[in-house]
Order: sequence, then structure tokens, then C-alpha cells
Amino acid sequence: MHNALYAQAGGVTAVINVSAAGVIETLRQYNTPRIYAAINGIQGLLDEELVDLTQINDAELERLKCLPGGAFQACRFDLDTLEKRPDQYERLLQIFSYYDIGTFFYNGGNGSMLTAQKVADYCQSKGYPLRCIGVAKTIDNDLAMSYCSPGFGSAAKFLASHFLQATLDIQSMSASSTKFFVMEAMGRNVGWLALSAGLVKDVIADLPLIILPAERAFNEQRFLHKVSQLIDKHGYCVCMASEGLCDTEGQCLSVAREEHAHGKVYRQFGGVAQKLAQLVEQALQVKTHSANPDYLQRSSALCVSATDWQMAYEAGAAAVHAAQQGEHGVLPIIEKVQDQPFTWRFKSYPLADVAELELRVPDDYISDDGMDITDAGLAYLRPLVMGERPMIWRQGLPALQPLNWKRIAKSLPSFATDKN
Amino acid sequence: MHNALYAQAGGVTAVINVSAAGVIETLRQYNTPRIYAAINGIQGLLDEELVDLTQINDAELERLKCLPGGAFQACRFDLDTLEKRPDQYERLLQIFSYYDIGTFFYNGGNGSMLTAQKVADYCQSKGYPLRCIGVAKTIDNDLAMSYCSPGFGSAAKFLASHFLQATLDIQSMSASSTKFFVMEAMGRNVGWLALSAGLVKDVIADLPLIILPAERAFNEQRFLHKVSQLIDKHGYCVCMASEGLCDTEGQCLSVAREEHAHGKVYRQFGGVAQKLAQLVEQALQVKTHSANPDYLQRSSALCVSATDWQMAYEAGAAAVHAAQQGEHGVLPIIEKVQDQPFTWRFKSYPLADVAELELRVPDDYISDDGMDITDAGLAYLRPLVMGERPMIWRQGLPALQPLNWKRIAKSLPSFATDKN
Repeated sequence: MHNALYAQAGGVTAVINVSAAGVIETLRQYNTPRIYAAINGIQGLLDEELVDLTQINDAELERLKCLPGGAFQACRFDLDTLEKRPDQYERLLQIFSYYDIGTFFYNGGNGSMLTAQKVADYCQSKGYPLRCIGVAKTIDNDLAMSYCSPGFGSAAKFLASHFLQATLDIQSMSASSTKFFVMEAMGRNVGWLALSAGLVKDVIADLPLIILPAERAFNEQRFLHKVSQLIDKHGYCVCMASEGLCDTEGQCLSVAREEHAHGKVYRQFGGVAQKLAQLVEQALQVKTHSANPDYLQRSSALCVSATDWQMAYEAGAAAVHAAQQGEHGVLPIIEKVQDQPFTWRFKSYPLADVAELELRVPDDYISDDGMDITDAGLAYLRPLVMGERPMIWRQGLPALQPLNWKRIAKSLPSFATDKN
Repeated sequence: MHNALYAQAGGVTAVINVSAAGVIETLRQYNTPRIYAAINGIQGLLDEELVDLTQINDAELERLKCLPGGAFQACRFDLDTLEKRPDQYERLLQIFSYYDIGTFFYNGGNGSMLTAQKVADYCQSKGYPLRCIGVAKTIDNDLAMSYCSPGFGSAAKFLASHFLQATLDIQSMSASSTKFFVMEAMGRNVGWLALSAGLVKDVIADLPLIILPAERAFNEQRFLHKVSQLIDKHGYCVCMASEGLCDTEGQCLSVAREEHAHGKVYRQFGGVAQKLAQLVEQALQVKTHSANPDYLQRSSALCVSATDWQMAYEAGAAAVHAAQQGEHGVLPIIEKVQDQPFTWRFKSYPLADVAELELRVPDDYISDDGMDITDAGLAYLRPLVMGERPMIWRQGLPALQPLNWKRIAKSLPSFATDKN
């Protein structure tokens, strides 16, 4: 029996630490000698920033199961290619060997799976017996092959719940004040989270709603026409838009920042709601308001979906089971078993099949006019936001004290991660 | 015994309907013959848009106690002066007489109290025995004379809770991603809500926090210096800013819209967080994120403070008691009785003493550098966010179906509210 190592990467979720707990508790079932976590993902691993979780106590595990954010820090850092930075790969092998790591669990989204795959390939080529397993996670829900992604259900539940509450607010004031309210959903180039606004139709019948998923080009004229029609009929209109919304020319409405790295363009979005509100105000001469919940939607322990929580836990457990069964270079992802009652299971796919791919919203979830969700879309979303988790409050605030880990004293020579 | 009328005005809160329930249940204790509500405040009253609540059932009352937004619609509409529009006042008297209204409860903020006072003065001058009583409400916490305002504690609890959760998110990713996160708080020209970020220090010790309350002029250089220092020391910095933040020249950073009406300038703010994020990004070359929860902060039944809920209920009850004791032209406001345990009571003040005044954050709640909260400020805030309310969920979303009221058939000639 060898030791195990766990690390987190990419944008965090409200339940990523639940996956960590799933990994740790399942590793214990298999009597894993030592359980380590790297602090700050693969970047911290290169720096030998490690924590020994073998003796983690039950109270800490329970706190892990409630804490949003990455309790072990999540990095936005990709390994370079082997050709460019062989030293990075050699360093990882050095760390794995020194700590006798037999399995490496990397908890991340589609981008992080590419890193996991590079590690798996390299170790295999060197004859080092590392089982490299991905642990699925992303609020964007864009993990290829997977029915859905751990982290998505909770973010969707946050957005739908708060969009509902804001709708009650504007509904009550629209006669003499705001007539158009628009909120911005994360998800980069995919509109899964924006679609969650559709769930509010289950609570408020005949909701004057517009959804602008990133999968459809934004047509200003048709949008303004629909807003105007809905305000005429209902007195107000509410809208949820994908942050990565682009027009028919392919121009995104709100690029906050562009970054070029590793030959790729990384775009940070932000501000589409404000832009749409200004557009409506100027064109239709009505009072508007916009909200951008930003990180609030992916960090809310207060709005965790119990279904999503369970999926996040099982994502961790499934990764450990896969390793025990001798799999490597795989990511266990969610497969729906049946609709009534909604059941699912994890099934392993090669990392190469999912890395860097992007699952977009299928056509039949979006209405013909491109500005609403279909019944098929609603049927997909409903089970994913189902159920709640208890919250412990202390002195009026969520009892979410960060966990402080004691780092292992470094034993290896230091490594210049950022050289070049 | 005469009948009673209730109406809502101004920006709504998560607990304004709790005050409605307090009014209704207390009126019942006094065996009020008929209990009416106007739909859409004084504007709906002029239009004879009325609901008869005398037979409201317990289930509806319980729903009122949970629903955010204005269940009876809240108007942003001021009466003109008596000189300019005597017909408005005559119309109100006509309505009051026809429905035999003996007490009028107007649930609103400092602006709405001016309207209530105009009504009270006019009726008194005409010898009509109307008791006009205000019911306190505003998330801004700027109601003059009052220790705090019903609606504030819940908005502060929402902001602090979600700022805490977002901080856990950025804390975990700051090593390789976002280093500065800024969130925008409502409150127009007052910084009460922005101060709520300080409560997060009770959960995360040594929090690298900057608060920018509207009471202090924004100094770009000193702000950037503090951000830079905090990032250097902690690896990240979180900030909460008042939407109405202005610079040392008196220029507000983010005026979304300006409206001139009734000889006053009404400014709609929005976008200060995004502006500050861009500023930090450009000056310090770090990745930033910004959030603007907008209506989410004032409509969250999910984050209601039990203390605030109780205050909102008592605001309604106190108004009815005041009327029964023969008071008129008053607003019952909150007076602190003692700190340990925190107790408070309602005390009536003449509407003229509170109308249109604005309670700003006192100097000793803001640190000397103008960018933090003091211990005195924290001691003030803590009891106001204390306690939680249960939420009923249905199919994954808060069970917050809007209440639909059956309007009374109109009996009086129609009235042109907006003539001129």
C-alpha cells in the first residue's frame, strides 16, 4: 500500500471541500497508510507545500463538509509542456517518490484535467506506478461527457432562489419604479447557470422572464422588442444573462480582462447585466436595475443543494474506488440512471476524453426565440437543485471559520516554479 | 370604532410584510371593524385600489411573515404640495370618508413620512378625525432619531454572510488568481450597510478588509496604498463600498441615473464596485473581481435576522398601539433600552421630526483612516443581525409564492392621479 495525495484546482465551488471529505473518508476505508493534501494545487505540490491529513479528526471533517471555497487552496496554474519545462515533471516525480505517493487525486474542472493527464502520462512513461484520478468539479456545468458537474446544482440553486426573491421585490415596485431587472450568471461560454432563472417559473406562474444563454447570439433589436412586450403585458420584466454573452458578430458584451498565456486567450467576463440595463433604460425609457452576484453564486454554503452535495461527496469517493480498482488517468463523472426517482452513478472516463472539452447547453433546452428555457431544460434542472443542507450560525453569521492546516516541514530542495 | 387602512411605500425590505402582519394582528386585538390595505401605496389609494383584509386567514398571515418584497406593492410616489394639487388631498379625504377610515398606517422610510405628514396635516385642518401613523422601514438605516430601522438588520446579515463566504472563496484562490474583491452595498448617502462587512472580522481574524462608507470622501491614492499594503501582507484584500461613494471633490463614483422631480434631484447609484475593481487592476496589476448584489440584499428571506424580524413586527404593532392611544402624526421608532441583554422598545416621535432627515454613520463608528469600522461600530451592528428565521423550501426553491389579493370593486368616480 502506498500513500495518497489530494489537491484542488480552478474556480472553487460551494461543495468542493465535500469532495475532499469524500476522498479522505474513502481512503480511510481502504486503510491508506498516509493521506496528504497539497496546498494550492499542483503549484503548491511543486513547492512541497503539503499537509498530512492522516489524523484529521471528525470535527475537522465535518467542517470540511460545510465550508465553501477551497480549504486546501485552489490554483489557476497549468503545467507547461514536457518539452518546455521537463524540470516541472521531474520535480513532481521527486515529490511523489519521496512521499511514496501511489494515487494522486486532482479536484478540478476541464482545464485541470489536462494537467492531471500530463502528470499521469509522464509518470507512466517513467515507469512510476502512479494512479492519477480526477475529481469532478465546476459550477459552469460544462464538463464533457458528464450528465452534470458537482458544484453546479448549488450555484444554480443560489441563482434561482435569489432571482426569485429579487423578482418579488421588483414585482412589488414596478408600478412606479423599476420595470426591468437583470442579473448576471457565471459560466463563461456556456449558459447552464443562466438557465437556472427558469426554475422561478415553478414558483411564479406566467413570469415575464428573458434568459440570455451564451449559446445564442445576442440580437439587440429582438431582445428590446421582447422586453417591451413583457413590460406592456406584465408591468415589468426580469432577465438572467450569461456573463459571456456575445452578439451576432461574435463580440462579447462585457470582457473585463483578457489574458494571453500558454498560447491561449483567457477572458474574464463581468458587467453584462449593467450593460443590458443601460441598453433597456436608454431604448425604452424605463427605470432599470442590475445585479452581479459574482463569487456569491459559487460560495454560498447557505444555498447548497443536497443533491449537489451528495454528488460532490460521491465524486471524491468514486475517485478513490476507481484508484483501488487499478484505474488510472481517468475521471469518474456522473451518469443518470433514471428520472423517477432521479438516480445517478459515477462512471470513469479517460481524462483525455474530457480534458479541455466544453459541454454546451443542448438546443432542445433553449426556446426557439433563444431567450427562454424549454420544458426539457426545466426537467433537467429541477432534480439538481433539490434538497437543502443545514447551516450552523454563530452570533448572527454562518459559522464558517476557515480551517488552518499545519504544513509539513519541507524535506526536499526548493524548486523555482516560475523560472523562465 | 372606525376602520383602518394600511399601505407600503419606498424601497421594500425582506421584512416589510412582517410589519403588515403586525399591523393586522394588532388591529384585530382591538376589534377594528374593517381592515383595508391600499395596493401600491398612496398612489393606489388615490386610485381606490383597495383590499379588504378583515377576513385574512392564518395561512395568509403566516405567508406574509415570510415573503420579501411588498405584498401590497410599494410606490415611489410623493403627493404634490397642497397648493399645487389640492385635488389629491380632497380625493384622499373622499376615500377616507367613504370607507370610514379612522387610522392610516403608512409603512415607509424617511421620504414616505413626509407624505404621511402631509396627509395628517390636511385631514386635521379639515376637521377629519384621521389618525395618521408611520410604520418604520428602510434597509438604509438612515431614519432620523431611530436607534436602527426595521429592514436594516436583515440586509446587513445578508451582506455580511455573503461577504464572508466570498472571502473564503478569494482567500483560497488568491495565490494564483484574484487578489482583490470588492462588493457594493446599498444605502445611498449613508454607509451603514457597507459597515456590515466588518462583522466578518468576528469570523476571520486579521481580515485584510477595507470599508468605504459614503460618509468619507474617497481618496484614490490612500485607498490604493492600503490595498497594496494588505495584498503584500495577506496575499489578498476584500472591500465593501457604499454605492454612493464620492471623491474629495464631491463627485460620486457611480451615478447610474439622475432624475429631477418635485424640485429635488434623485440619484440612482450602481457600479461603484466595478469601478474600484478596474482602478485596482490598472494601478496594481492584480486580478480583481467585483460583485453588486443590488436587490438581492434587500429581498433575501433566506438571510432574515430574527432580531430585525421582531423589530419589523413590533413596528407594525407599535403603530396600532399608538393610534389606539390617540396619537396622530407620529412614527414609532426604535429606542435601545440596554446592551446586555440587548433590549429595545418603540417610542413615538412627530413625523415632522423624522421626515426627510437622514441619519448618517457617527464618526466614532468609522476608523481614523476612514476605511474601517471601529469596535464601537461592531458593538452597534452585532445585536442587529442576531438570530435566524426558518425557511420552507418546495422542490428546491424557497416556498415564496406571491399572495394575490382580491381587489374591492371601486365605488367612487375615477381620479386622474397624474394630471398636470
